[in-house]
Amino acid sequence: MRTFIIKANEAHTRPDFKLSDLPGTSGRIDILCRFLNSAFLLSHGFRKNVRAWLLLYGPPEPPKAIRFEGSRLKVRLNPDERSTARLIMKALKAGEGLREPGKEVEVYPGLYVSNRTFEDVIRLTLKNSALYYLHEEGKPVEEVRFPTNVAFVLGDHKGLGPEDEMFLDGIAERVSVGKKSYLASHVVAYINIFLDSLPNPP
Amino acid sequence: MRTFIIKANEAHTRPDFKLSDLPGTSGRIDILCRFLNSAFLLSHGFRKNVRAWLLLYGPPEPPKAIRFEGSRLKVRLNPDERSTARLIMKALKAGEGLREPGKEVEVYPGLYVSNRTFEDVIRLTLKNSALYYLHEEGKPVEEVRFPTNVAFVLGDHKGLGPEDEMFLDGIAERVSVGKKSYLASHVVAYINIFLDSLPNPP
Repeated sequence: MRTFIIKANEAHTRPDFKLSDLPGTSGRIDILCRFLNSAFLLSHGFRKNVRAWLLLYGPPEPPKAIRFEGSRLKVRLNPDERSTARLIMKALKAGEGLREPGKEVEVYPGLYVSNRTFEDVIRLTLKNSALYYLHEEGKPVEEVRFPTNVAFVLGDHKGLGPEDEMFLDGIAERVSVGKKSYLASHVVAYINIFLDSLPNPP
Repeated sequence: MRTFIIKANEAHTRPDFKLSDLPGTSGRIDILCRFLNSAFLLSHGFRKNVRAWLLLYGPPEPPKAIRFEGSRLKVRLNPDERSTARLIMKALKAGEGLREPGKEVEVYPGLYVSNRTFEDVIRLTLKNSALYYLHEEGKPVEEVRFPTNVAFVLGDHKGLGPEDEMFLDGIAERVSVGKKSYLASHVVAYINIFLDSLPNPP
């Protein structure tokens, strides 16, 4: 089981953006669309053993947590950004007016929205997965022995802030796919292909 | 120097598609947009040592060859699909009415369009690069010794046909990033990150 968690510091938390201008109007929800593409899609296939969490911290109602559960997802995840952004919009619409911090609304089977925080999601994930923070200065992934359940934390184009990094210190091992700073979607694509190559892939 | 070549069997060769529905109206030019994103983009950076060729073979005027030359590109390549599709549209518009097979039109500095065929582009590339065909059954990239100038050939969602494969036999080494069938953009992201990790990256 593979979990990918991305914190999107500016991603809008209401469906107030334009599908025709995601980079300019949504707080870069286009990044989340490509992240989901890399997390789940194969050529003519879909990774059921993946869970993805989007943590949206942009205006006007942060945070919103959107969970895609590969094993249960009944709605089709297409490779293009626009159709994925439409799913995120639907989730944000379903999450409007949510007040209870712990309550998760099912948007479609396998797609959920809640007011969970980044810290909530990390704590929840730690219960059954080894946690890794993808960072240029981490240990090369080739040298890590990954267990059966793995979870990877990534930042968006702004990266994680010092408070998030402090929170992760001691609970997440820093691992790296290289010394350069790569786009989140490229890192996730690399990690998935790399994990597939292991004798016992998570 | 890294060259990435993709043959898109159904990609439209005139700008007759809708930016608001790339998968449905363009013959999957969305695939080419994500391919370019993976070929060129770093987080807050751009790979100048990359050349990308899009070989479009869809209706109504195949073939069209679009070349993105990283070292000279003056127009901004943004990460989102829609703005990249707009560049492809501009190139196709500039290529309308082109008759001479060998003539290349400069759309912007570093962006060119021509009527070159897949075979033309492969022959041209062979002059200064070692050629690799990315294929599930190829030699693992980890076992390949890559020279300074490398070129990778990929298919789109339909893959390359038997004629293309026959043409590549003997001139391109089959190399693989894994046994599964991956999306072109994921393969290119993997290859770029993998090449970066080599002692003398191409």
